[in-house]
Amino acid sequence: MVSRYPEYLDPAKWRRNLALQIEGLDFRVWPDVGKNEDILLVLADFAPPGLFRSLRNLRCICKLGAGMDALFEDPDLPEIVPIVRLQDPTIASQVVEYIVLYVLSRHRHLEIYRRQQLERTWHPIPTRVTSEVIISLLGMGRIGAKAAEIFQRLGFAVKGWSRTAKKIAGVECLFGEGTLTDVIGDADYVICALPLTPETRGICDRRFFEAMKPGAWFINVGRGGHVNEVDLQTALESRQLAGATLDVFSTEPLPKNHPLWAHPKVTITPHVANFWLDGGIDEVAQLYRRLLAGCSPQNVVDKSLGY
Amino acid sequence: MVSRYPEYLDPAKWRRNLALQIEGLDFRVWPDVGKNEDILLVLADFAPPGLFRSLRNLRCICKLGAGMDALFEDPDLPEIVPIVRLQDPTIASQVVEYIVLYVLSRHRHLEIYRRQQLERTWHPIPTRVTSEVIISLLGMGRIGAKAAEIFQRLGFAVKGWSRTAKKIAGVECLFGEGTLTDVIGDADYVICALPLTPETRGICDRRFFEAMKPGAWFINVGRGGHVNEVDLQTALESRQLAGATLDVFSTEPLPKNHPLWAHPKVTITPHVANFWLDGGIDEVAQLYRRLLAGCSPQNVVDKSLGY
Repeated sequence: MVSRYPEYLDPAKWRRNLALQIEGLDFRVWPDVGKNEDILLVLADFAPPGLFRSLRNLRCICKLGAGMDALFEDPDLPEIVPIVRLQDPTIASQVVEYIVLYVLSRHRHLEIYRRQQLERTWHPIPTRVTSEVIISLLGMGRIGAKAAEIFQRLGFAVKGWSRTAKKIAGVECLFGEGTLTDVIGDADYVICALPLTPETRGICDRRFFEAMKPGAWFINVGRGGHVNEVDLQTALESRQLAGATLDVFSTEPLPKNHPLWAHPKVTITPHVANFWLDGGIDEVAQLYRRLLAGCSPQNVVDKSLGY
Repeated sequence: MVSRYPEYLDPAKWRRNLALQIEGLDFRVWPDVGKNEDILLVLADFAPPGLFRSLRNLRCICKLGAGMDALFEDPDLPEIVPIVRLQDPTIASQVVEYIVLYVLSRHRHLEIYRRQQLERTWHPIPTRVTSEVIISLLGMGRIGAKAAEIFQRLGFAVKGWSRTAKKIAGVECLFGEGTLTDVIGDADYVICALPLTPETRGICDRRFFEAMKPGAWFINVGRGGHVNEVDLQTALESRQLAGATLDVFSTEPLPKNHPLWAHPKVTITPHVANFWLDGGIDEVAQLYRRLLAGCSPQNVVDKSLGY
């Protein structure tokens, strides 16, 4: 067992907790992996170059974190080894917290009141009627669906867009490329929570931003690869967009000299919408036991779709 | 009909919309009230001193906004005239938006990331596991109950406290004075959403803050009268509290020279948690028609409880 893991994950904690559930577990942390042919299961966000080629007895890859794109871009990803997506609901709800926070912070003028406090100014600002504010969620997987549910309960008008048809009570769900403009055209907030696939790469480009309602707000919790950052900056400067909240970028960490850092209409966070913790340990123990028992894993990713 | 209204309410819009629903309506806006004995229904947040004494044919008072305290403090409030509380759900959901926003902004380090952006610093900060974060809501009326529902769906641990017993699935509801310490003792966020009554005035005092968990956060969307502001500042300075988000104050607008404005641990907003708009117009039209038909009004406030 080996793992190339996000830096905030604590491998010692995983080793300790997994050992409690699996007797005699041999848990190895990359680069200290021992003999490559011993490896049965890889836990990874993505793999060091060439690693997969050398794991002759690999039976399963378990993806840490939400997006599959970094794994699928690995030229050594073995064709026949199943990739498992953890079902831990905290992954989705972490991102939903982030989306709700940044929509509400604009809707309720958080930044303006912060500035007013510095000036000791008492000046109430009308809020828009929540039911007249349209939130469009791109990507209606676990994150999009959960966010739709929360926004709906808060009283917002919610639209969803996905590759295939979805049905969520009270949410106008559209699907397929032809409907994208309808979904983003009248939204006050457009939220990208898509998986990164060949179909969605660069989807937020000049045409996309021009199709948005003037004065709308864009939030990206998908991947940097979804957004053409030059087109985004043009849309911000032409006042087409009121602003953007960005958690992911084409290059991460965002380089010190990148113009987005200082853009007055842009809020930047360091890829923390999904700050995945240790919610998946039990699931991994279960998966490992299935493999030892000769069973095939559950919750396998569809490689042809890329997510 | 006469009205002393919150400054953000647009009486012209109310006149226009009510006139569409009630033929021949005589809608007057204080101080231009015409003959006092003509007044049948008062719409008011509170009344100018002495006004109620002169309204001999008054049949009903309809309260604008959520808290009843300013009305009940009026020495001229007529004993027998019923006071109606509008049921418009947007009043509660407005306050819920505010509570959710300010809990999440701390939970997800909004302020820290804002500062990091100014310094072009890319530094992810772990979030706490949401299910281990306890939110205690004081006041389980429409606001508290709705907030409990949303926090629960986001995965927080939620407790509620109220005068009488309440039952909300998944929420630990306690009631009565004796249980207050239990509710606030282990909470990470304590939210005051109580009505202001003789029993709750000054409830957030030295003893209250000392009973809170060290490092917890206090949010007040109730009334300034709930909080002893000197005791609050002591609790902030002793590090008993990590911080506070305050929307209401003992004196409003908060005076320019008030020390809370510049307190580094305090977030101040100018009484906007409930930014009530025009959701109640239809309800008022209905109420007025009931009065004309000689029916008694619905949703009457219990004067003995004060809310």
